[in-house]
Amino acid sequence: MAITQDNILKALAQVMDPDLKKDLVSLNMIKDISIDGNAIYFTVVLTTPACPLKELIKNDCIDAIHKNVGADFQVFPNMTSDVTSTRSTAPLLPNVKNIIAIASGKGGVGKSTVSANLAVSLAQSGAKVGLIDADIFGPSIPTMFNCEHEQPEVKEINGKNVIIPIEQYGIKLISIGFLTPPDNAVVWRGPMASSALKQFLGDTDWGELDYLLIDLPPGTSDIHLTMVQTIPVTGALIVTTPQKVALADAQKAIAMFKQPQINVPILGLVENMAYFTPEELPENKYFIFGEGGGYKLSERYEIPFLGQIPLVQSIRESGDSGYPSAMKNDVSSEAFEEIAKKAARQIAIRNANMAGTTKVEMTN
Amino acid sequence: MAITQDNILKALAQVMDPDLKKDLVSLNMIKDISIDGNAIYFTVVLTTPACPLKELIKNDCIDAIHKNVGADFQVFPNMTSDVTSTRSTAPLLPNVKNIIAIASGKGGVGKSTVSANLAVSLAQSGAKVGLIDADIFGPSIPTMFNCEHEQPEVKEINGKNVIIPIEQYGIKLISIGFLTPPDNAVVWRGPMASSALKQFLGDTDWGELDYLLIDLPPGTSDIHLTMVQTIPVTGALIVTTPQKVALADAQKAIAMFKQPQINVPILGLVENMAYFTPEELPENKYFIFGEGGGYKLSERYEIPFLGQIPLVQSIRESGDSGYPSAMKNDVSSEAFEEIAKKAARQIAIRNANMAGTTKVEMTN
Ligand SMILES: Nc1ncnc2c1ncn2[C@@H]1O[C@H](COP(=O)(O)OP(=O)(O)OP(=O)(O)O)[C@@H](O)[C@H]1O
Ligand SMILES: Nc1ncnc2c1ncn2[C@@H]1O[C@H](COP(=O)(O)OP(=O)(O)OP(=O)(O)O)[C@@H](O)[C@H]1O
Ligand SMILES: [Mg+2]
Ligand SMILES: [Mg+2]
Repeated sequence: MAITQDNILKALAQVMDPDLKKDLVSLNMIKDISIDGNAIYFTVVLTTPACPLKELIKNDCIDAIHKNVGADFQVFPNMTSDVTSTRSTAPLLPNVKNIIAIASGKGGVGKSTVSANLAVSLAQSGAKVGLIDADIFGPSIPTMFNCEHEQPEVKEINGKNVIIPIEQYGIKLISIGFLTPPDNAVVWRGPMASSALKQFLGDTDWGELDYLLIDLPPGTSDIHLTMVQTIPVTGALIVTTPQKVALADAQKAIAMFKQPQINVPILGLVENMAYFTPEELPENKYFIFGEGGGYKLSERYEIPFLGQIPLVQSIRESGDSGYPSAMKNDVSSEAFEEIAKKAARQIAIRNANMAGTTKVEMTN
Repeated sequence: MAITQDNILKALAQVMDPDLKKDLVSLNMIKDISIDGNAIYFTVVLTTPACPLKELIKNDCIDAIHKNVGADFQVFPNMTSDVTSTRSTAPLLPNVKNIIAIASGKGGVGKSTVSANLAVSLAQSGAKVGLIDADIFGPSIPTMFNCEHEQPEVKEINGKNVIIPIEQYGIKLISIGFLTPPDNAVVWRGPMASSALKQFLGDTDWGELDYLLIDLPPGTSDIHLTMVQTIPVTGALIVTTPQKVALADAQKAIAMFKQPQINVPILGLVENMAYFTPEELPENKYFIFGEGGGYKLSERYEIPFLGQIPLVQSIRESGDSGYPSAMKNDVSSEAFEEIAKKAARQIAIRNANMAGTTKVEMTN
């Protein structure tokens, strides 16, 4: 076959995105084809920089050219990404491509740990990431990012006072912990807590983001309702531990997002504290909190299972020291990276197949 | 000395209650003295059936008689108890002698586990115990007591509809979990949740109780405020795990109870999940969540330290199977029994030294 732009496109039209179930050309993912003697250059625009299929798609492109255009060409796909969104015409934060809530129902199962590490992994992949700590009564994000004593600036932008998020490890952060002293309790009824969240969404200068994560408090109450009433949420991730009392509450969180009037897509489930392995007995797995409960729940509700995270002392230490595991180079960081990739993938699939989420009307 | 009632009383007036720092006679703890030949009988009325000093006081009584009345007498103290109260004139639930809140700030640290086991241990000691599951969005008590499918009766008493608590293992229980299906989320704003708690306190037939425990949700919000505004709480117990993010939230819970307008005495602190010991390596302690953090916090705030509970798979299993550890006969049940005794002791000390708690006025 002659080496023309057209033939290259025809060849690449044979390559499927396995997730989106269409070919790269129809998906508008091929850009900037150029030919230089024996070398073929083009850009593949993936739906997320954290795409777990990046290498697969790259190799498929090379194979398709070799097969359909000629085996002797040198093929140089330039793998980039442009995170997809269903929010570009949203009235609030249209420059934030995806808003992802992290929920659990039960307390202490690792929502904040997963949120922090997901944020780091996504940022490391090259995405622009923000993180809202929506736990007004038990904010963990300032500690987990070692910036407990930071105070966000407030600036006037277009005649309106806006909060400038704290930036740490390349991630934009906001938390009530930046605004109140650590040894004070925030003893507020729901409406006060809700108005803090509204400020974090409406009066904060998030700029352009690929992913804005919302680390939710336990339960299914004011903060959760205010969130879905303030902003259409792209999707939710469920974190659970394997035991019965945690699964029962995860089920409640799932039920909340599935309520017809709320209707936030559930993009995946993470099973945390899946088992403990002592350093001295690396082959032993202690299922302290039970075995496989998260996986079973994901099957029952047909939610993509994003993976297991073991109970590892260094994950807790990383949380307390403010240096998330995902920034290191060990087994835990790999587990979090895997989960981040799978989450990003599910977000892209959701954006390809579903319209934007609708904001919930205020009825209470 | 002659064997008379008076001389026996004089002898027993030498015996101090080490906690209340007064002698048993001034404390009105000696009843029903009788003499039968060589045998001396009397009743010692302790301030709680879970009194950890029971044996000590009994032996002190025998010694005091031997020393002051005569060494040849046979002494038979009958150790009983009458749980003390500062609530006997309270407008709501005056027949409930002590109302104890179990709080943590942080989620998932073991409030419900401690509440359930405390209830069982106190009941096993002979006390009349009730337990309110105040976690409206993540109720664990029905599972932890294996009565998820029970439905409380409603009866008309004096022209008013009252809820009859479920009774399990001799403990009266109420939970939103008895009133809603398990796979439904209770997605309520604060006022709805608060009114459920008000019903649990005001419209439930608790009868006479020595201890009514309230298992609080995480945070410091509506439920906590509604509790202190509805009923004067005798005291609070703080549960924490050792890591920094948990201690930070425990500190917030402590700060809440210490607020001058709330002012609920903090009776003790429990450090849960203190360390993990695998069965194969019983000498190893893995401080997965850190070491000694709970103890340090109790020192810093001068709160009685009630003890540590290790991270043990059987405690989690007991929670999931609805058969609290304290009902068994193992290391964990001993740990919970110890904590129950120390808690009961602190309640008695509080009642001896402080006036009743005042209800918080509704300002919000
Ligand atoms: N896989 C893990 N291994 C070890 N420790 C973990 C793991 N996941 C979380 N932790 C620790 O467990 C504790 C609870 O986790 P985290 O604070 O993330 O839970 P949460 O769901 O956000 O809690 P809350 O409901 O209070 O907001 C933290 O101290 C955290 O560091
Ligand atoms: N010492 C322990 N050893 C092993 N597992 C424990 C221990 N204490 C608690 N657990 C388990 O940990 C989980 C969390 O405990 P629990 O539900 O009592 O916490 P909580 O503070 O009431 O949580 P929430 O904030 O969600 O109400 C439960 O599955 C429980 O069985
Ligand atoms: Mg959290
Ligand atoms: Mg609980």
